[in-house]
Parts: sequence; C-alpha cells; structure tokens
Amino acid sequence: MATINDNYLKLKAGYLFPEIARRVNTFAEANPDAKLIKLGIGDVTEPLPAACRTAIIKAVEEMGDRATFKGYGPEQGYPWLREKIATHDFQSRGCEIEAGEIFISDGSKCDTGNILDIFGKDNKIAVTDPVYPVYVDTNVMAGHTGDADDSGKYEGLVYLPITAENNFTAEIPSEKVDLIYLCFPNNPTGATASKDYLKTWVDYAKANGSVIFFDAAYEAFITNPDLPHSIYEIEGARDCAIEFRSFSKNAGFTGTRCALTVVPKTLTAKASDGSDVELWPLWNRRHCTKFNGVSYIVQRGAEAVYSEEGQGQVKALVNFYLENAKIICDQLTAAGLTVYGGVNAPYVWVKTPNGLSSWDFFDKLLNTANVVGTPGSGFGAAGEGYFRISAFNSRENVDEAMQRITDKFKV
Amino acid sequence: MATINDNYLKLKAGYLFPEIARRVNTFAEANPDAKLIKLGIGDVTEPLPAACRTAIIKAVEEMGDRATFKGYGPEQGYPWLREKIATHDFQSRGCEIEAGEIFISDGSKCDTGNILDIFGKDNKIAVTDPVYPVYVDTNVMAGHTGDADDSGKYEGLVYLPITAENNFTAEIPSEKVDLIYLCFPNNPTGATASKDYLKTWVDYAKANGSVIFFDAAYEAFITNPDLPHSIYEIEGARDCAIEFRSFSKNAGFTGTRCALTVVPKTLTAKASDGSDVELWPLWNRRHCTKFNGVSYIVQRGAEAVYSEEGQGQVKALVNFYLENAKIICDQLTAAGLTVYGGVNAPYVWVKTPNGLSSWDFFDKLLNTANVVGTPGSGFGAAGEGYFRISAFNSRENVDEAMQRITDKFKV
Repeated sequence: MATINDNYLKLKAGYLFPEIARRVNTFAEANPDAKLIKLGIGDVTEPLPAACRTAIIKAVEEMGDRATFKGYGPEQGYPWLREKIATHDFQSRGCEIEAGEIFISDGSKCDTGNILDIFGKDNKIAVTDPVYPVYVDTNVMAGHTGDADDSGKYEGLVYLPITAENNFTAEIPSEKVDLIYLCFPNNPTGATASKDYLKTWVDYAKANGSVIFFDAAYEAFITNPDLPHSIYEIEGARDCAIEFRSFSKNAGFTGTRCALTVVPKTLTAKASDGSDVELWPLWNRRHCTKFNGVSYIVQRGAEAVYSEEGQGQVKALVNFYLENAKIICDQLTAAGLTVYGGVNAPYVWVKTPNGLSSWDFFDKLLNTANVVGTPGSGFGAAGEGYFRISAFNSRENVDEAMQRITDKFKV
Repeated sequence: MATINDNYLKLKAGYLFPEIARRVNTFAEANPDAKLIKLGIGDVTEPLPAACRTAIIKAVEEMGDRATFKGYGPEQGYPWLREKIATHDFQSRGCEIEAGEIFISDGSKCDTGNILDIFGKDNKIAVTDPVYPVYVDTNVMAGHTGDADDSGKYEGLVYLPITAENNFTAEIPSEKVDLIYLCFPNNPTGATASKDYLKTWVDYAKANGSVIFFDAAYEAFITNPDLPHSIYEIEGARDCAIEFRSFSKNAGFTGTRCALTVVPKTLTAKASDGSDVELWPLWNRRHCTKFNGVSYIVQRGAEAVYSEEGQGQVKALVNFYLENAKIICDQLTAAGLTVYGGVNAPYVWVKTPNGLSSWDFFDKLLNTANVVGTPGSGFGAAGEGYFRISAFNSRENVDEAMQRITDKFKV
C-alpha cells in the first residue's frame, strides 16, 4: 500500500492568499459593479523593462538557428549571468561572493522551500512572527514540526515576534536554534535591518554553528545608503549564511521567473558523525539532480538587467513603486492610521484602528472602500492587529484606493 | 549546530554524465584536433519550432504593455495550456483526463524528483535496472534507501532487471512494492510497452494499492498505432498512476523548459491511520507552496505546439530524430553489432561486442572513432555490457559517426 507524507495533513487548510481570493470572489459576486482595487498580493503591475524584452526576443531568435540553438544549459545557470550577478550585486558592495557560489533558479519561493532538502530532520528552526508563510509551510511538509495550535503556531518551531514594540526586529532567541529565516527588507512588515543588527545574528550563528537563510528579495528597494543589501556585507556571514534573491520585484519578473541562491563554498554544517560537511556540494548535487536550469531565454532577460539601459529601467521601476509606498504612507497617516515600513520597502504595515482584528479590517476595507489588502494575522499570530498594503500597483489605482480609504476611515 | 541531510553522503560521487564529461575533456585536451561527435546525453539539437518562437515573441511583446503584462500566473499553469493538453494529448486518445488534473512545470526531471515529497518514508520503491538515474538518486536523497553496494545498487530499493533476455520489459515483482517507476518509450533502452503489458502493471498496482510513476517523456516518438502513448489508455490507471510528460524531446524545449504532471483526482494513498487520502490536493499544495508557475512566455510557446502549424513542425522534428535512429540501427547492424530500441524511440541500445564492458566500449569508441555515447552500466548494474546511442544530433553528425564506427568496429 502506497502511503502519503502525513505531515501534509498538519497544514492549515487556508493558505492566506487562497482565503483572500475566496472572500474577494464572494464579494465580487454579490457586488458585480464594484470596482475592486487589489493591494493584497505583492505582485508587480508595470511592464517588463525594454532591455529585458529586447534581450529575450534576441535569444528566441537564436533558438531558431541550429548554430545558436541552446539545449540543456548548466543546471546552475549560465556563467555570463552568474558572473554579472557576482560582480554587480555582491563584489561591488564589498562582498566576497564569486560566480561559482551563485545558483540561478526559477524562483526564491522554490529555493527557500527546497533548501531544506540538504539539511537534517532534527534542526531547531526559528522564524519571525509574522513571517512569509512559505518558510513555515515547507518546514511542516518536511516533518520539522508538530501540529498547529489555535493561533496557527506549529509545535517545534521557534517563533520570534516582530511588532512595533521591538521595532520589528526579532530579538536573539534565548534557546539555541540551528536554522534561522531572516528577510530584509521585510515581508510583510517593510522593516529594514542595519548592519549592526545583522551583525548580532551573524555572531550568534557563528557562535552556535547555526545557518541563516537570508531572504533579500526586496533589497532593490533600499535607498538609505547605510543599510546593507546583502548579509555578506557583514563580516563572517560567508561562514553562516545562505542568501536568496530574485528578479521578481526589481525587474518585474514575477511572471517571467528568475531568481538566485548564494551558497558560499566556506559554509559547512554537521554530519551525524560530528564531521563538518560543506553545503555547496550538497546544494549543487540537489540542484543538478532535481532541477534542469532556468530557460535560456529568461536568463538572457535577467542578464539585461545588468546592462546600462537595464539598470536605468529597473531603477525607474523601483522608484515608481517606492513613490506608491510613500503616497500610501502619507495618505494613511493623514487619515489617522499608524503605519510602518513603506520606506526602503514596497510594503506598508498598518496598525488596524480601534482594536479591529486583521480580518475584520480586511472585511471592512473590502466592503466599504472596495480595496483588498492582506490581514497581518495571515502571516502569523503576532501579525494580529496589523494589515499589509502593497505598493505594487498603478499610480491611478493607488491614488484612488487612498482616496477611498481616507474618505471612509478618517479615525 | 545545524546538521545536514546525511542521506546525501550515500550518493555515489560520479553521476553518470559528469563522469562522461570528465573523460571527454581529458581526451579532448590530449587530442585537440579530434572532431568529437557527441551521441551521449539525450539533448536535442534542432531549432525550436517556428510556431513556438512566434508565440513566445508575441508574449514578450505583451509583457511590454501594462494592459497585457502578466505577473504571477496560476501555479498549476494557465488554463488555456492545460485545456489544450487535456484535449489533444489525453482525451483524443480516449483518456479521461481533465485540464484540472494537469500541472504545468519546468521539467520532468524536477517533477519525478519532487513527487516523492507527498509520499511517506516507508514505501517500498521499485525501479527498473537499467534506469534513468534521477529516479534512484532522488530516493537516496529522501532517505528511502540504505547504502550502495559495489555494483551501485542501493539497499532497500527493488531493482527489476530489463535485458535482452526479458525483451527489456520488467517482470512483475514477487515481493510487494508500493511505488513503481515505469518509463516508456524507455530511457535508456528504447524499449516500448504494449497495452497488455501495461495492463499487468495497472492490475498489480490496483491489487496492491501501489502507485505507478509513468514517465512518458518520449511518447511523441511512438509511430506504431498499437502502442499506448499514455498509461491512462489502460483501464483503471486513473486509480493508480501519475504520468509525467515534457515538451523537451518532442518540441525541442530542453533549453526552454516546460513539462507537465498528471495527478488524477481519483487517485488515493494511505495515511498512517489507514484512511485513504486523495493525492491531487497534496500535490496541488506542494506545487503552490514550493513552485511559482512556469514563465508565461514559455507557456505561450508550449501552447503553440498544439496549433496546426506547431503540430506539423513538431512532427517533422520527431521524424527527423527517428530517421537518425533508423540510420544508427541500420549502420550498427551492418557493422555486426546487435542493437535494440531505436524504433518508436530516440535511443539505440547496443550490445557491446566481444564481451567488452560498457566503459571499455565507451573508451574504445571515444579513442578510435571519436564518438561519445553513454555506458549502459551508468544506468544500473544490469546495463553492463550495453551502450546507449542517442539519435539527437544533426544528420551530418549521425552519418559521420556511423561511418567512423562501421570503419572501426566491423565485428
């Protein structure tokens, strides 16, 4: 008799975004004339940069000639892309990351889930609360947790609250943890991390033999020159951190699909016999065995991000969304709401007014302003009483959504 | 202390294709003037069909206009692609497969590895010997095996020999197995399966509550109208089989990346409490949590395979490689070698002459004819004494390789 992975049965039925979709659909069916504005899911809306489109089309044309046709590429990605990333994203900021340590993939969501494959079953896992749900769900699937309690917390995980009280920066845990997920600029709170703050985590990880999973998917939104874009800007991070990056949010690749993971060759973890094992060969083996590389034409599109033209276009895209974030922050503040994030980050984290629960605020916003956001409690128990608004939308929609909210929510 | 997944340490160091690459590089360095012809790895060489290129370019242009820009798509794939696959590849052949049971992915290699995520740790796994190495390695990584013995066989797996003696069709095992990998047309042997033969497996699986993983990546090469293209052509398969398909080998997508997995909604397996659990929701959850959908522009390219123009172009591509296979079979037979496969399949499976081992034949072919193939023993112990030659190459290269071999290997 074939048996299933019972850990899947522990997963809470309603993954956040499907539940939002369900409520939105119900509302839309009952109110067919309402013009909904969706500031919920963090999906880009503006066109793919022209430099990327031109490069992809050129690559498609190469595919039409057997002399330039590309079959299987290197599973890790083409050297010309890995080298540009190493130079531009890391070495230019003083990070000692080489091209061979960069693995091109089709998404950070995939990578942050798949990375668990190379780690043991008995690691103690720490996540912030609230947190990007994929970190938690993939640990549940992998059997690293017990069941969830009523607040949605899974037994066995260490939750590190991030709230206004600690300025949305998790405190170093009192118990020892082996694998730690950090995401800065943060999804969902929009919080950022200083070098000093990240240094405390690197020091902790090195002292305890822990590995940090650093999700830098939103680094392009950092405008403050004092903030680090990569964990490798922190001394010692090469020995304790894996970093995830994506072209989704800077270059608008959410529907085009390209990302990368950095596994330094100096990074090790323990085998069960106590020996130190390098993680790079394990991830390389995993990547080559269970992945076949990103589409050649897409990699050419990603490469174009690093051209002079591409850099200008990506910068303009990022600035556009950051201006949206500023409008959201300003208007909500003017409406009497308390907001966090939205600076150096595309997410605005709103304190729900009058003690409303996150879902109550969601429903109220949907019903009165026809605006869709994301309930903070969907990201974890400590997100209760907060609400995420995404800056990824057109200016027209952002302006109209803010107008409706200020009209309805004057506190 | 972070710990690793110790199962990775059980993996044999030399994955087949890297070892081939090593020997080829050594030869090429010592013989810089030799013109190598590679008939080893099963990678396509001919241009991407024009219909696919045109569709991709149109999709890229859509990405340049915010009115037609595509961000995140459905993780399972766009309905227009899933529907065309359901209609054309399944329903037209009498298979009751609906669009909602088709999951678009970026590769069958990924899917055949990832599918294990939703199954329990204690399933008894059967693979043929020889076999596509990814099936074995992903089970090793998942902790479903013990160590390998000297012949490369992993403790705990059930190996079903496929050799000339049983016409390259595995016999039903005497012991009960829970998960069974079948691949037809077969990689590496080029063998095909009749409906009657697949029926014995479906009956076995239904009687024992087993699940068949049916890899149909090469179905497009079937020209014999009596042979099934899909396991779902066999009555009862909806209740016991998952099928994997790919655009890699029919439409030349090895570097473009698109594939699909079929999980029927009627398929169940046992939870540890003995209850029956549907596999579709588990795979759907896995797919949505650890994958973010295939690139929109690539899905449009795959859709074009089903246009009238695309169908003609794909058929021409497949016929081209099949003609290569026929030339290989004819020429090697004329040279006195015994060959199998190469009909309804792009792989020719050669018996090594004079009792040579697979690797000895590899080295001899490389050194004397400067032709690269794949040692049969690299696919499993029972592949010893065989050799795989791929029909994926230009006509010119195939002709020249065969000329060289007939010149050197007249038995």
